[in-house]
Amino acid sequence: MPIPQTIAWTPAHGVRILDQTLLPLEERYLKLNTVEQVAEAIERLRVRGAPLIGIAAAMGVVQALRREAGDSDGAAIPRARALELVQAACDRLKATRPTAVNLEWALNRMRRRAEGTLGNLATVRDALIAEATNIWDSDRVMCDRIGAAGLALIPDGATIMTHCNAGSLATGGIGTALAPVYAAHAEGRRVQVLADETRPLLQGSRLTAWELTRAGIVCTVITDGMAASRLRLGDVTCVIVGADRIAANGDVANKIGTYGLALAARAHEVPFYVAAPRSTIDLGTPDGSRIPIEERRAEEVTGLGGRRTAPVGIAVWNPAFDVTPAALITAIITDDGVVVPSDIASRFG
Amino acid sequence: MPIPQTIAWTPAHGVRILDQTLLPLEERYLKLNTVEQVAEAIERLRVRGAPLIGIAAAMGVVQALRREAGDSDGAAIPRARALELVQAACDRLKATRPTAVNLEWALNRMRRRAEGTLGNLATVRDALIAEATNIWDSDRVMCDRIGAAGLALIPDGATIMTHCNAGSLATGGIGTALAPVYAAHAEGRRVQVLADETRPLLQGSRLTAWELTRAGIVCTVITDGMAASRLRLGDVTCVIVGADRIAANGDVANKIGTYGLALAARAHEVPFYVAAPRSTIDLGTPDGSRIPIEERRAEEVTGLGGRRTAPVGIAVWNPAFDVTPAALITAIITDDGVVVPSDIASRFG
Repeated sequence: MPIPQTIAWTPAHGVRILDQTLLPLEERYLKLNTVEQVAEAIERLRVRGAPLIGIAAAMGVVQALRREAGDSDGAAIPRARALELVQAACDRLKATRPTAVNLEWALNRMRRRAEGTLGNLATVRDALIAEATNIWDSDRVMCDRIGAAGLALIPDGATIMTHCNAGSLATGGIGTALAPVYAAHAEGRRVQVLADETRPLLQGSRLTAWELTRAGIVCTVITDGMAASRLRLGDVTCVIVGADRIAANGDVANKIGTYGLALAARAHEVPFYVAAPRSTIDLGTPDGSRIPIEERRAEEVTGLGGRRTAPVGIAVWNPAFDVTPAALITAIITDDGVVVPSDIASRFG
Repeated sequence: MPIPQTIAWTPAHGVRILDQTLLPLEERYLKLNTVEQVAEAIERLRVRGAPLIGIAAAMGVVQALRREAGDSDGAAIPRARALELVQAACDRLKATRPTAVNLEWALNRMRRRAEGTLGNLATVRDALIAEATNIWDSDRVMCDRIGAAGLALIPDGATIMTHCNAGSLATGGIGTALAPVYAAHAEGRRVQVLADETRPLLQGSRLTAWELTRAGIVCTVITDGMAASRLRLGDVTCVIVGADRIAANGDVANKIGTYGLALAARAHEVPFYVAAPRSTIDLGTPDGSRIPIEERRAEEVTGLGGRRTAPVGIAVWNPAFDVTPAALITAIITDDGVVVPSDIASRFG
């Protein structure tokens, strides 16, 4: 089965998304026609994954101008008003999630494109549709390039451990962490994946397991606490995870639980790779301690699927991400080749 | 509020248990009147925790003789028949869970007591009631002794991280891992606990959070994947966990996730303690590689509370326990004092 289309334009350039909160039980697509609807979808993780958030936000900016234009073509609305609407949309969308840098990167591209476009609202809108489409297309290419760059790390018979979901559901293409797996599978190599379920929101057991099964790749789900034991068994070829932000020194922010996994991989001398596009690299952030970490609602931890599992009123600490220091990362698989973390600044500076 | 009574005799020496699968939403007690009912309660984790399993199994053996006796006092039934029934009960109860050694230890005590008792079924039954009661009473004392032994490790203002539930709900008393916490709290020291939720069955968020809150001790729940990040923050005084079996070389089998936690504690130089009674020490097992590890049903990982969260048919690896090597354990807090793991064999041999 082809990879699912996580995001697309509707015929009138609304945003169509696969609602990932309903997976794996239901494959339902939503149409989003306003900036607020797109922002809500990002906040509630209906669309998630750093690259896909960037694409969704870019498409979201377009909604600001579609709506204002109404049924007309927007030709009568001046450029200054269009730029105001773009700025407000960028502000709203940027506030949705603080950790992933791709979001900011995509919104900056959209704002610059709007500012660089002369003409009325309709002209700016068309330019922004082209820019968002370009971000989306580039993302698909980026995924393929990460897959090609990582292919050499996945021998026939490999078992790859991953955390959270950095697959096709997190991008506009074949994913980041899972791109080398898909590439190896396409080459006819036998590969299998061990997916950490990734509490609290179970992106591993809900999403990674779903998309790999759909693609015909063997996937075994484990709880996050089982990863260290499994690494000790000695049958894991390597760990590959995605990234939400890579600092200039090679420290990586990714889904909570990544850091503990990196410690366990190091203890067993299993290679630990991070796969991410160049847009995830934030040279303006010197090291991981400066990356803002989103804290989310206690309810994500105190229950599951609407069912409460912890005592009422219990305190919870719920950071959505953690930082893995560069020293624990064997290499970073980018769309521009495989790089050791200490070379990030010189390579992409 | 006093600690909950996890297990007790009914007036006629049936077994009354707190059904832990319903916590924290419901505090319901069940009466068990047959060996099979007790075995089922252990298998389904209605009673769980290595010391409590031992007590429940001991009380369970008594049910074999109660039932056979029927309404009579069993005086007419010969000793040979009573011993047969005891043997069958021990076989059934031992098969419930393979990892915790306290179960075997308690059943061996019951069998030896039966074999050493002359007289008819009624006499054997009364001896076994006394033996099971003794195991239960000793467990309460054992918990208090672990609490006293560990008290010096819990300064005023301490933050203790724990995994799974090795508290009052896992024992007949104030617990093993939580015993020093309860002892420090009773001394008026300010203590708080960080509880790993402990997937797949959430003994941390369901049980540890419930019993500590009930006792007025501040508890914060985190997912298992957050532990390494939290240890890095530097505010954790020490980690204390329970044990299901301690091998002669000091390796410790405990709830899955313990090993990864021990690796993270070592990386941050946070002391990592195991608290367990002497009955958990199995000198017949030379090291952790010889400890049988129970694998449980896939459904524990693919869903929660009856709600499916992973794709149908997905593969799962679900070991209930892992082994933490002695080298990662700072000390073992026993009812006979605090011991470094390498001294286990010489101290208790």
